[in-house]
Amino acid sequence: MLEKSLSTITKLKVRFQECDPLQIVWHGNYFKYFEEAREDFGREHGISYLDAKAKGYSTPIVKSFCEYKLPLKYSDSFRVETTFKNSEAAKINFLYKIYKGEQLICTGETLQVFLDEKGELVLNNPPFFLDWKKKMNLP
Amino acid sequence: MLEKSLSTITKLKVRFQECDPLQIVWHGNYFKYFEEAREDFGREHGISYLDAKAKGYSTPIVKSFCEYKLPLKYSDSFRVETTFKNSEAAKINFLYKIYKGEQLICTGETLQVFLDEKGELVLNNPPFFLDWKKKMNLP
Amino acid sequence: MLEKSLSTITKLKVRFQECDPLQIVWHGNYFKYFEEAREDFGREHGISYLDAKAKGYSTPIVKSFCEYKLPLKYSDSFRVETTFKNSEAAKINFLYKIYKGEQLICTGETLQVFLDEKGELVLNNPPFFLDWKKKMNLP
Amino acid sequence: MLEKSLSTITKLKVRFQECDPLQIVWHGNYFKYFEEAREDFGREHGISYLDAKAKGYSTPIVKSFCEYKLPLKYSDSFRVETTFKNSEAAKINFLYKIYKGEQLICTGETLQVFLDEKGELVLNNPPFFLDWKKKMNLP
Repeated sequence: MLEKSLSTITKLKVRFQECDPLQIVWHGNYFKYFEEAREDFGREHGISYLDAKAKGYSTPIVKSFCEYKLPLKYSDSFRVETTFKNSEAAKINFLYKIYKGEQLICTGETLQVFLDEKGELVLNNPPFFLDWKKKMNLP
Repeated sequence: MLEKSLSTITKLKVRFQECDPLQIVWHGNYFKYFEEAREDFGREHGISYLDAKAKGYSTPIVKSFCEYKLPLKYSDSFRVETTFKNSEAAKINFLYKIYKGEQLICTGETLQVFLDEKGELVLNNPPFFLDWKKKMNLP
Repeated sequence: MLEKSLSTITKLKVRFQECDPLQIVWHGNYFKYFEEAREDFGREHGISYLDAKAKGYSTPIVKSFCEYKLPLKYSDSFRVETTFKNSEAAKINFLYKIYKGEQLICTGETLQVFLDEKGELVLNNPPFFLDWKKKMNLP
Repeated sequence: MLEKSLSTITKLKVRFQECDPLQIVWHGNYFKYFEEAREDFGREHGISYLDAKAKGYSTPIVKSFCEYKLPLKYSDSFRVETTFKNSEAAKINFLYKIYKGEQLICTGETLQVFLDEKGELVLNNPPFFLDWKKKMNLP
């Protein structure tokens, strides 16, 4: 199925300094994991930060969200499932699920927009992004 | 007015290493600012992490959200307005607004629950939290 | 005395997420405190990162060192004493001491060099740095 | 040769948020890489943070040092060579070298001591550490 091919799985391990005095990963650090996973997706599918930059665009985050269900502890191994959520808007929307084995640790979401080289918001999808969608068979 | 007294304003300055290669504060670092502001609120109103801990509770974050409107850059001074959002649930809900001068930089939200000393979720409001609400004239 | 005027005192407080599972400030975070203190010195004495940048130079760290004597814990207030260590070399050398009350928490040091706009190492002191030294009555 | 077997090589990649406005890895983040590499060594050779903790000891860092020779940039792949430096003292001393391909990026060092369960400094090598040295054929 199509959607399946637009997900990536990234395997990570909790670093010591990512944990807080409660002995669990500090909640803000999940956005580091999402970013590493998002860039992993980008490298695999040709839509990374550096790909966008090479075309003259930056793609800052305009929304980020995380819902925490179970904690991660130091030295835990886990995986991030990153899914591209397609839409017609000039935006990049990713959904994340972090699993430790079969346990769902958290879910998250980020939304990015396109800025041109002057730092102005781009209201229509940039050509390189439309080309990428076509290549990916996305409507 | 009541709500006014349940807000806190925290003044901060952007640290160099909080900025990313786009020359702006990395989006995940706003959750550090929210935390510093939330703890500032807690110290001012007697409901900080250490207050909860002294009563035998920890209060992990279960949801976090940020919507970014304008970037912050290195050495920018800004303020975080932290507001306690009251409800009947056994939860702690804070809303955040970050301003640089008159400019709204971002809005955010966190939700915390209570865990007892065994790490189990507390379904009813702990006595110390009810006492605190009473003291604050919250319904 | 001259050296005295080339120190700055920066007052800070430990943030929650700067502490690790040992309940103390993670050792690498002291370099954040040093940087905040160094920039504080720079703003006070006109030799900050942005001052150097305005003159066409960047000043990357080439050595950093910290010796830890006592831990800092969450919500501790502390001060960083930052001292400029003068020499003839085209380098910027700072010494740091962190105190909590009368207790010496740690000592540290950083060394910076000058890069020009092409990113090349500058072997002689840049004019703006010599001017600054003169203004500060440094040999 | 003996020393060779007491090194570990850890392969890492630069994360976006580890880079600063100079577009290079922020100097304090190298201590994260050292820690990840040190723990990698510990897991491989049975002397990690969790191994020490299981025996009733914590092993805080008392000195850290880094000398930076070349910068790392976003998405660079690199390796950390971590070497245990043996001595008779009740200390754990690691040396680090980070390479990107054949280029030496930086060298570093950390020194750790042993604290017992009361948090008191241990002046003699703990039995578990002596056992570990014996197993490793270290004098």
